[in-house]
Amino acid sequence: MEKRDKGSSPMAMMMGSRDENEDVENTTRTAETMLRLVPMALCVSALVVMLKNTQTNDYGSLSYSDLGAFRYLVHVNGICAGYSLLSAVIVAMPRASTMPRAWTFFLLDQVLTYAILAAGTVSTEVLYLASKGDTAITWSEACVSFGGFCHKALISIAITFVVVICYAALSLLSSYKLFSKYDSPVLTYPGKGIEIATFQG
Amino acid sequence: MEKRDKGSSPMAMMMGSRDENEDVENTTRTAETMLRLVPMALCVSALVVMLKNTQTNDYGSLSYSDLGAFRYLVHVNGICAGYSLLSAVIVAMPRASTMPRAWTFFLLDQVLTYAILAAGTVSTEVLYLASKGDTAITWSEACVSFGGFCHKALISIAITFVVVICYAALSLLSSYKLFSKYDSPVLTYPGKGIEIATFQG
Repeated sequence: MEKRDKGSSPMAMMMGSRDENEDVENTTRTAETMLRLVPMALCVSALVVMLKNTQTNDYGSLSYSDLGAFRYLVHVNGICAGYSLLSAVIVAMPRASTMPRAWTFFLLDQVLTYAILAAGTVSTEVLYLASKGDTAITWSEACVSFGGFCHKALISIAITFVVVICYAALSLLSSYKLFSKYDSPVLTYPGKGIEIATFQG
Repeated sequence: MEKRDKGSSPMAMMMGSRDENEDVENTTRTAETMLRLVPMALCVSALVVMLKNTQTNDYGSLSYSDLGAFRYLVHVNGICAGYSLLSAVIVAMPRASTMPRAWTFFLLDQVLTYAILAAGTVSTEVLYLASKGDTAITWSEACVSFGGFCHKALISIAITFVVVICYAALSLLSSYKLFSKYDSPVLTYPGKGIEIATFQG
């Protein structure tokens, strides 16, 4: 209904609210650019904290690179920072959103969200095992000897989860921007047909 | 453009393609119901395989419940099976898709996708650690002594990842169904204004 009303008076829409629409467009574009720059900054900080995470004491030496999950976290944060910067630059440019562009953003945002979520959860599990250990499987509580290492890892993981929230919002936004270009899948349903007939008659 | 053309001739649409639209609607509803029943079946199998996963030998006894990640996998698979069944029943009913319903499906599908992905990745990490061990952190390779346990866990995790793929598709579908109800966020952009003016004049 709403769509048809808007479509039936494009002249009125043009005359009255052309500037207003441009303002709204600029505001949303700025907001989206910000929403992409924030995770970039967070990814870089999570990456730096984890990269510098090495502890050496009487028990030996422990580095982030000794654990596959933390290596994966560093890699994904690096990729995520790069993608966030690139996508922020593209979004910031005042250009019409085309269909292939909307699809690319949608798919990449989804993939990045899944990848960063996986990195966060996997690292959390490793940190959990390192702090609690597992007696059944005879895994020791590494955090007792390497407290500083675990603390820094926790900071890095916490930052990563903030990135996850940002990316969940971004993938919601990009799916809205993509699918709002399409028609609703349901064209007829009970009651609608009568409504249209009344509207016409 | 396409939306306006459709909107301008609802009578023609009603007369010619009412039955056709209903057929399309029924087909998509059946397809979505199937897409929700498949992960239900898979969740139940992943859950059963993991629940029965216990091995006792000379080294001791190892059960899925000894590992937090595998317990989480069982819980999420249970919730996922229940939600899949419930949502399949709701989708199967021939009723108009309202806005609150579309939002509920969208949000729950997203949350379930993230939860099941987290369960899959976390369990994969634990299985990886159990099979490879970690010398730096002095974690033993438990799969050497508990081969059968690890094999069953691998099957359960593999099934869980098929569920992840189903749910990624479902969240794509539900975001399409939700956001296609909304107007495109960009109302005016370079060139569009002129196009509308020509259309009107």
